[in-house]
Amino acid sequence: MTGKVETEQILFTRGVPAVEALPTGLISECLQAVLEGPDGKTVLQYGHNGGYLPLRRMLSEQYNVAPEQILVGNGSLHLQDLLTALIVKPGDIILVEQPSYDRAIKTFRRRGAKVIGIPLEHDGINLDALEQAIAQKTPAFLYVIPDFQNPAGVTTSAAKRQALVDLAERHGFWLVEDVPYRTLRYSGESIPLLRDLNPARTLTLSSYSKLISPALRVGYLIGPVELVKPLTKLAEETILAPVLPTQAAVVEFHKRGYFASNLESLQQLYAPRLQAIVKALKTHLPGVPFAEPEGGFFVSITLPEQTDSSNLLARAQGVGLALTNGQDFFADPLDEREDKAHLGERFVRLPFCALTPIQIEEGVKRLAMLIAD
Amino acid sequence: MTGKVETEQILFTRGVPAVEALPTGLISECLQAVLEGPDGKTVLQYGHNGGYLPLRRMLSEQYNVAPEQILVGNGSLHLQDLLTALIVKPGDIILVEQPSYDRAIKTFRRRGAKVIGIPLEHDGINLDALEQAIAQKTPAFLYVIPDFQNPAGVTTSAAKRQALVDLAERHGFWLVEDVPYRTLRYSGESIPLLRDLNPARTLTLSSYSKLISPALRVGYLIGPVELVKPLTKLAEETILAPVLPTQAAVVEFHKRGYFASNLESLQQLYAPRLQAIVKALKTHLPGVPFAEPEGGFFVSITLPEQTDSSNLLARAQGVGLALTNGQDFFADPLDEREDKAHLGERFVRLPFCALTPIQIEEGVKRLAMLIAD
Repeated sequence: MTGKVETEQILFTRGVPAVEALPTGLISECLQAVLEGPDGKTVLQYGHNGGYLPLRRMLSEQYNVAPEQILVGNGSLHLQDLLTALIVKPGDIILVEQPSYDRAIKTFRRRGAKVIGIPLEHDGINLDALEQAIAQKTPAFLYVIPDFQNPAGVTTSAAKRQALVDLAERHGFWLVEDVPYRTLRYSGESIPLLRDLNPARTLTLSSYSKLISPALRVGYLIGPVELVKPLTKLAEETILAPVLPTQAAVVEFHKRGYFASNLESLQQLYAPRLQAIVKALKTHLPGVPFAEPEGGFFVSITLPEQTDSSNLLARAQGVGLALTNGQDFFADPLDEREDKAHLGERFVRLPFCALTPIQIEEGVKRLAMLIAD
Repeated sequence: MTGKVETEQILFTRGVPAVEALPTGLISECLQAVLEGPDGKTVLQYGHNGGYLPLRRMLSEQYNVAPEQILVGNGSLHLQDLLTALIVKPGDIILVEQPSYDRAIKTFRRRGAKVIGIPLEHDGINLDALEQAIAQKTPAFLYVIPDFQNPAGVTTSAAKRQALVDLAERHGFWLVEDVPYRTLRYSGESIPLLRDLNPARTLTLSSYSKLISPALRVGYLIGPVELVKPLTKLAEETILAPVLPTQAAVVEFHKRGYFASNLESLQQLYAPRLQAIVKALKTHLPGVPFAEPEGGFFVSITLPEQTDSSNLLARAQGVGLALTNGQDFFADPLDEREDKAHLGERFVRLPFCALTPIQIEEGVKRLAMLIAD
């Protein structure tokens, strides 16, 4: 018998929705309505790979584009993978914010791209570094998460958005904007999409994973018809046909007014969690600067330089704290002389939506104690 | 005003289930039970990419394998694509039956393989030609559809199945057996799977597209853990997480006994359609030999050599008959001196499940008149 006290494990790992926020009853109702309604047979048969037409029509109205400009896929990672397969040749450059979404970096690399990270500041990407990177070689695209960025929580300012579309136009590369968190704003005012500033240069990705449910796997890409058409063909050649019942449930969820009410519930649930993490960081890690987000799923910090970051994950595990490896969020540095081996070593992503304010406070306290050792 | 009479278009094109066979009410009931049951939250959250665990457990009992040997994907084409991405290097050989499933041939080629077709006889692949191909170069795998083959309707005999596993064992290549139609047997006795004869050399693919509904997109692959594990990782890197509600609905569909009763309904609906097409072919195209299937979706014929097959599709369209291009079902010939340009030109696939006996009779009659011209 040891005197060991069980410590509750706190998971600062994946950016998943809170379980209590998953609308099981409403989705059940929507699926039932769809399957027992006039379109029931259609949503169980082979469909066309652009996705369920009423969903593309709904999105086309929201984004003011033609339905042919929309491809619905099994989540936005699926679309990132297809897009890269279509337009990126091995050795091509893809620029990303540094840090960026770990799975996107990995996907771009698997498809043969060299992925270079451009430092992300509290109002968006560092423009000087971006121009320097473009001058070295025009990228196939620049991948940005302009709203409540994963992992840093940063929102790109209106001025920097304008600068991005100007650069894309001048040098002829795509802007891929990934906006799954955009609607989850808890305070402040929404800033125009890159698409709003220059639709001809922008490919917009988003999904319902954070807004309804991840397991529905409904994501979409919006772009010019000339690109969406071959992309849809590639989708057909790899997954044959769309999962129609879940796509139809998303449409029904909107039709019944559940999207708006569910979004409000999410905001009411998540806003105090964001406040809790901001307060906990200011209280327990007062010297550590971070971008204070106005929405989304993530806050991130970079531990002070003097922090011993060796075995950080294992040591955190020892105090009941699960962290993601910070290095995964870092692509190749622009300056090749930079020390790649230690890049992101002191970077800690803190997803806050699936934790209660009490768990958040306790988690940040443990993190502070750990690095004070 | 012309005197034109409207002719009903008869679609001998895609192998889709009959619309009247899609169990909308039962699926609705299953989805509702799942979402409002104890697993409701789980099936709306991010899941693990091997697929919904209760589904893998159910399949593991059916096939007498471990759940870790099963990967559930978005239909079996998705799994064919992932499998080829994982194990085939550009220039590798994949052998297929000649003719074979058009989308599989295309997928294998897109992933860089050289796809060679081995002539298919009425009891399975020609073994002499297969041995000759293997002697030239050991393939990465041999892809076969042993039951009610798409497109030819052929079922591989027990003796030939044994010969295939012997060859695979002796030369060290994978057998990929695709068995989506296997359960749809309308007469005769089932023959063991290749997996039953040599599980260590066999990768089994199947799906619920033809047995419940295509739009659920639930397919699966069974193989050794050493292969399924990296394949599952690749699935996670490309589509992140499975569509859980539809996978859970499949489990519920079985639990409630609907799978057995639905299968019986399908057999009762499709068996007379198979009889109708066999009779129509014997009546209207008496000289044309074909493999008479005991199940599945397809009968195919090769038009007599003297038939004028130029513009066949367009001419068929002219008499209200939609046909698939026969050439799509043909891979590269084993003998490189063979005339590739005309391979499959006289091959006509006739999917019969989604047509009524009256439409089938009328369709075959039109085809016979067309080639008699």
